[in-house]
Amino acid sequence: MTHSDSLLQPHILRMEGYIPGEQPQEDNFIKLNTNENPYPPSPLVLERIQTACNADLRLYPDPNAMGVRQRLAKLFTIHPKQTLIGNGSDEILNLILRCFVGPNESVVYPYPTYSYYEKLIQLQNAQSRIIDLNDDYTLSNEVFGTDARVTFIANPNSPTGTVLPHTTIEALAQSLKGLLVVDEAYVDFSGPGSINLVERFPNLIVVRTMSKSFSLAGMRLGFCVASPVLIAGLWKAKDHYNINRLSLIAAEAALDDINHMKKNATQIQDTRSRLSAGLKRLGFSLPPSAANFVLARSNDSTTIHLYQELKKRRILVRYFNQRRLEDCLRITVGTNAEIDIFLTAVEEILHNSSENI
Amino acid sequence: MTHSDSLLQPHILRMEGYIPGEQPQEDNFIKLNTNENPYPPSPLVLERIQTACNADLRLYPDPNAMGVRQRLAKLFTIHPKQTLIGNGSDEILNLILRCFVGPNESVVYPYPTYSYYEKLIQLQNAQSRIIDLNDDYTLSNEVFGTDARVTFIANPNSPTGTVLPHTTIEALAQSLKGLLVVDEAYVDFSGPGSINLVERFPNLIVVRTMSKSFSLAGMRLGFCVASPVLIAGLWKAKDHYNINRLSLIAAEAALDDINHMKKNATQIQDTRSRLSAGLKRLGFSLPPSAANFVLARSNDSTTIHLYQELKKRRILVRYFNQRRLEDCLRITVGTNAEIDIFLTAVEEILHNSSENI
Repeated sequence: MTHSDSLLQPHILRMEGYIPGEQPQEDNFIKLNTNENPYPPSPLVLERIQTACNADLRLYPDPNAMGVRQRLAKLFTIHPKQTLIGNGSDEILNLILRCFVGPNESVVYPYPTYSYYEKLIQLQNAQSRIIDLNDDYTLSNEVFGTDARVTFIANPNSPTGTVLPHTTIEALAQSLKGLLVVDEAYVDFSGPGSINLVERFPNLIVVRTMSKSFSLAGMRLGFCVASPVLIAGLWKAKDHYNINRLSLIAAEAALDDINHMKKNATQIQDTRSRLSAGLKRLGFSLPPSAANFVLARSNDSTTIHLYQELKKRRILVRYFNQRRLEDCLRITVGTNAEIDIFLTAVEEILHNSSENI
Repeated sequence: MTHSDSLLQPHILRMEGYIPGEQPQEDNFIKLNTNENPYPPSPLVLERIQTACNADLRLYPDPNAMGVRQRLAKLFTIHPKQTLIGNGSDEILNLILRCFVGPNESVVYPYPTYSYYEKLIQLQNAQSRIIDLNDDYTLSNEVFGTDARVTFIANPNSPTGTVLPHTTIEALAQSLKGLLVVDEAYVDFSGPGSINLVERFPNLIVVRTMSKSFSLAGMRLGFCVASPVLIAGLWKAKDHYNINRLSLIAAEAALDDINHMKKNATQIQDTRSRLSAGLKRLGFSLPPSAANFVLARSNDSTTIHLYQELKKRRILVRYFNQRRLEDCLRITVGTNAEIDIFLTAVEEILHNSSENI
C-alpha cells in the first residue's frame, strides 16, 4: 500500500484538467458559449428514440454500429469499412492519438485552435509543437512538411471561425509524413469539407460530429472517415460497446432526415450574417466566419467586463483568457431573437461603460 | 505521405481485435450469452428518458454528472468526489490503465477472467502478468504482494461465477504496492461488495456497472468508487462530456428506483438455483455462482457440439475456445421460462448424441 497520488503516472499528475465551457444546469440562460445549435434535432430523431425507450435497453448495443455506418457510406460514397462512430468526436480524437502517437513523439497543431487537442496530447504523454496562425488566421508555412506523427487542423477553425480552402488541405496532406487529422466539427455551416480527399491520401482522417449541425450535442455522436487500414487500427482501440442504443438510433434517424439539418444550417448562416453586421456596427472587428459562431474583437480592453455584464443578464458567451484572444469574445449563433437580445445587451453595456468614463 | 499501416504504433498493429459475445440483430434468439438481464429496466427509467427525448438534446450534457454522483454518494455513504461515471465500466477500466500504467509496466490479473483486461493492457503497451486461479478458482498466493502497477480482480469473477470473500480482498489490498482494481460488475447478484474498503485502502478502486443488475447494458453506464485523489487523476483523463444526457437521466432514475433492481436480482438468484440444479441433474459440474450466469463443465467433449446445436435452436450461450474452458459453457440466467426451454433443449441434444454413438 502506498500514497495514492504516487500511483498516478507523472504525466497525468502534471496535467491540468480541461475546463469545458460553462454548462449551467438551470434553464434561464441564453447560451451562446459552447456552439450548440439553437434549433431542436429532427422530429424523426425524437420520435424514433422515444419509441426505443423500451425493455430492449437491457441489451447491449450493436458494437459495429452498422446502421449508422451504412448510412454514412451511402451519404459520402464510401465503404462502411472507411468509417467509425465515436462517443462524440472527442473520443475519436482521443483514439487517434492513442493509435498513432507514442510517448514523447510530436503532434503539431496551430494556435489558436480547439484547446482539447492539448489535453489529449498531454494525456498521451506526447509532445505538442504549437505553430501560431498568421495574423489573418491562415496557416503558417511551418505547419507544412513536418515529421510530426499527427497534425491537427480544425477546419473551420475554432475559435476563429475561419476556413482553409480545399487546396490547402490537399497540399498539407501531400506534404506530411505523418497523419493529417482534419476536424470538421463545423463543416456543415460552410463548404463540403475534405471527405472526398480520403481516397487519395492514405494519411488523412476527417473527423466530424453530430453535436453542432445535427443539434445532437446531448447524444454524443462523432464519426470519422479514412482508409480502411487506419479505421481498422482505430477499431482495435475503441471500447467495443462505445455507443449506446439510443445514440445509435438518433444518428440513424438524423441521417435519414438530413434535410432538417441542412435547413437549420442555412438558417444559422443567415443569422450569422445578422450577428456579424450587428457586431461590426457596434465597433467590433471579426474575421469571416464559416462556422456557427463568430469571434468578435473589441477595440478597447472591455472584453472581460462585457463577458461579465452579459452573464449578469443571463447571456453566456465564451471568453478565453489566452494569448491572442484576450480582447475577443466567441459568440455562438443562436436564433434571430436570441441574437437581437444579445446585440441590444451589448449596445447597452457599451453605452453604460462609456458614460461611466 | 507514407503507407497508412506504418502510421500505426507497433503495439497497436500487433493487437488482435477483441471479439465481444455475439449480438444478433434479429430478435428471435434466447440470448444467454452476454450476461444481460432478462427483465426490463425500471419503469421510472423508461418514463424519465422518454420525457427527456426533447429539444434539449441539442445541448451538451452535464460534464460533472452531478445528479448521478450525488445519488451514489448517498447510496454508499461517500462523497461525490469519490466517484466517477463512465461510458460503461469498460471506459473506466480503460481510464485506469491510462492513468496508472506506463509502457512496459506490469499488470496482474488471474486466469480465467474477463478477457477485456488483456485487450486494454495491450492497448496501453503494458505487460500482462497472468496468474492462474487455483483449481477451485480461488486466488493463487502469487497474486499477493507483487509490485505490479495494477492488479485486476473481477469479483464475482467471470466466467467462473465464483466470489472471493471480503477478507481476501482486504488482504490483497494490504499486500499490494500498486493499485487494486476490484471489478464488481456482478456484485448485486451476491454480496455487498468492497466499496466500504475504499476509505481504508488508498490503493483500491471498486468498479461497477449498471449493465447487469440494473438492466441497462444498452445505455452504457459504469461507475467507480475510490479516494478523491485517485478519482481526480481519472477525471483528468476522461473525455469531458463522456456520458450523454439520456444515460445520465437513466442512471439517476435507476438509482431512484433501486428496489426494482433488487427485486430482479433476487428473482435471478432464484432462477440461478433452478438452472444450476437442472444442469447438475444433466451431468454437468459447476462451481457455486455468485453472478447472473453459471459456468457448466461437461464430463465429455461435447461442449462445442452442444453450443452449436443450441445455436441451431436459436439459443445463444457463450463458448470460450480457451485453455481451462474448452469443456465449459457459460450460461446467463434468463427468465424461468427461458431456462426451462434451455434445459429441455440440452436434455434433447444430449439424448440425441448418446443415441448416435
